Amino acid sequence: MEYETPLFFRVMGYAARADRDVIDMVSGNPDWEPPAALREALHEYADLDPDAFQYPPSPGLRDLREEIAARRGVDADQVVVTNGAGEANYLAMARALERDAGSEVLLTDPVYPYYPGKTTMLGGSQRFVATDADGHLDPADVRAAASEETAAIVVNSPNNPTGAVYPAETVCELVAIAEEYDAILVSDEVYDHFDLSGRFESALAVDSDHRIVTNAFSKSMAITGFRVGYAIFPPDLVENAESRHMLVNVAGSRPAQYAVLHALRETGPEYYERNRDLLGERVDAFTSALDDAGAEYTRPEGAFYVMARFEGYPGTLENVERLIDEAGVAGMPGEAFGDARADWLRFALVTPRAEEAADRLAAYFG
Amino acid sequence: MEYETPLFFRVMGYAARADRDVIDMVSGNPDWEPPAALREALHEYADLDPDAFQYPPSPGLRDLREEIAARRGVDADQVVVTNGAGEANYLAMARALERDAGSEVLLTDPVYPYYPGKTTMLGGSQRFVATDADGHLDPADVRAAASEETAAIVVNSPNNPTGAVYPAETVCELVAIAEEYDAILVSDEVYDHFDLSGRFESALAVDSDHRIVTNAFSKSMAITGFRVGYAIFPPDLVENAESRHMLVNVAGSRPAQYAVLHALRETGPEYYERNRDLLGERVDAFTSALDDAGAEYTRPEGAFYVMARFEGYPGTLENVERLIDEAGVAGMPGEAFGDARADWLRFALVTPRAEEAADRLAAYFG
Repeated sequence: MEYETPLFFRVMGYAARADRDVIDMVSGNPDWEPPAALREALHEYADLDPDAFQYPPSPGLRDLREEIAARRGVDADQVVVTNGAGEANYLAMARALERDAGSEVLLTDPVYPYYPGKTTMLGGSQRFVATDADGHLDPADVRAAASEETAAIVVNSPNNPTGAVYPAETVCELVAIAEEYDAILVSDEVYDHFDLSGRFESALAVDSDHRIVTNAFSKSMAITGFRVGYAIFPPDLVENAESRHMLVNVAGSRPAQYAVLHALRETGPEYYERNRDLLGERVDAFTSALDDAGAEYTRPEGAFYVMARFEGYPGTLENVERLIDEAGVAGMPGEAFGDARADWLRFALVTPRAEEAADRLAAYFG
Repeated sequence: MEYETPLFFRVMGYAARADRDVIDMVSGNPDWEPPAALREALHEYADLDPDAFQYPPSPGLRDLREEIAARRGVDADQVVVTNGAGEANYLAMARALERDAGSEVLLTDPVYPYYPGKTTMLGGSQRFVATDADGHLDPADVRAAASEETAAIVVNSPNNPTGAVYPAETVCELVAIAEEYDAILVSDEVYDHFDLSGRFESALAVDSDHRIVTNAFSKSMAITGFRVGYAIFPPDLVENAESRHMLVNVAGSRPAQYAVLHALRETGPEYYERNRDLLGERVDAFTSALDDAGAEYTRPEGAFYVMARFEGYPGTLENVERLIDEAGVAGMPGEAFGDARADWLRFALVTPRAEEAADRLAAYFG
């Protein structure tokens, strides 16, 4: 069994080695400040007694689980604190595949490349459902693809890479389809704080024992390197997921959990609003420069990314490398996200130089 | 597929709820200070720019991999920094099982219970090789159990729970057996800094592409909650392990890796010696009190634990709970570690109250 190493790392390596100034629009690393309380809590933690440096409970610090549960309206025992959304999705998909209720995973095309990678690693097979041109998913298409073999339906809203934010009806229908086919809807909501449409709906809004919601503080607190995420399981699926978490990782990293707990308690809504507004401004500036460049693009309703297409310039790795060398802008090849967007490029807006990058693209393609 | 939840958590929960003072000799959490440089580095990290809070490279901070590689005499590209020894063992065992070279895992009896748990989770089958009364492993017994079906041989020296430290000849023979049967020796050396015998030998001493060495800073730096460990792979096995690491966890937690890197660079041998000497003194005091209690026991050559047997008091969960209630000492039931030691109890010496606990045991059983 071999896994595909995501293209991210190849592109980032190429950009780092380039012989010129390159604006990095590859990775989804926020470039803004984490909450002040997070820094304070790390200082506080550094001076605690040695016992605070030892194993946290395997499913996470109890106070953190309770804090998350209270915000999400679930029981703390349903929450497993994970090593980022990455592990949360891994646990959720593993749980869906080991229920002996099918071995097929329904994914969208375009897709976030870690999902097919995890599916293969876990021994499942993939089936792709195409989204609309704007990245939206028609539940009728998902239903048409679903069968007795469906173990999981994995979605991500606000979506990476398309920027689509699924409306409540879609989320509701996806849960219904999962129930109908005895499958599990895995709803990855890691960009929930970056909903620019005001229409985001969590899968938690629909009560069901057929959906697992995953999330993390990586994006919302600008700490992708801390690796603190969580999954919310239906009560009858949580115990087994906790065992897998324990057998793989024992527990997550405690200084990171401690800092997140304090930041969660002490950070007001204005912190999250400020960063969302900043992202909104960047979307405006970047898309307006894309207009100048004559590019086709999808205006994101949420998340960090803009997908764009330049006439006669398909989204291959080769073209991405050419763009790094000739325009000084690093994006992601659309082909990394599946067949549907092979002609496109994905640009991450988490750089203060997003507008400058757009100007470079306009000059290069214009 | 269901996994056994290790008994640790049940016993610790019972001890915490007890209506009296209980000395915790259950968990392997060091009770001494971490290196001073580790606390300093956490303070330093808390004030870094936001980009230091984002994803580290998936296989670990480059400087940390190089620092580990230099100390272990391997190439930095062979080192994957993991979420503790737990993930290191998971990656190593998964790698051994997916080589299509057998699906059986040879384990020792007594065994560290996470190993059979991981084996089952990864779809492998278990075969146990009994150790001698003192916890030592006769390579001839391992060879007799090995076959074409052997995917991995998983050992742990200094050993949890027996305290045995395997001599160089054993380590050498185990590598030879792995080579003979196209299997992988997984050598978990997490207690290497707590060798009281002076005879510890790392499997790295034998050059081979059939052994993976796992380790962590959890015990040596008294930071079980930080979750920083590593696995050293033969060059041709590392890429696939890195992919699994990325697909499960994306990366480990960066503040923890940063702190460990600095502590590794700035901590002299006297730190490690002091803690090892402290452990040695506790072994003396505890075993001498066990003599007073008329208990049979194995004097550990390394690691944190003493296994003891009290006449007419088998190591069941029920008896462990009775000991908590009636003697105020919490140990681990021997049955957690396999059939061979079902009559025994395991006591962890990582408490300043180890001698007091031994006195309580002497009073109770004496």
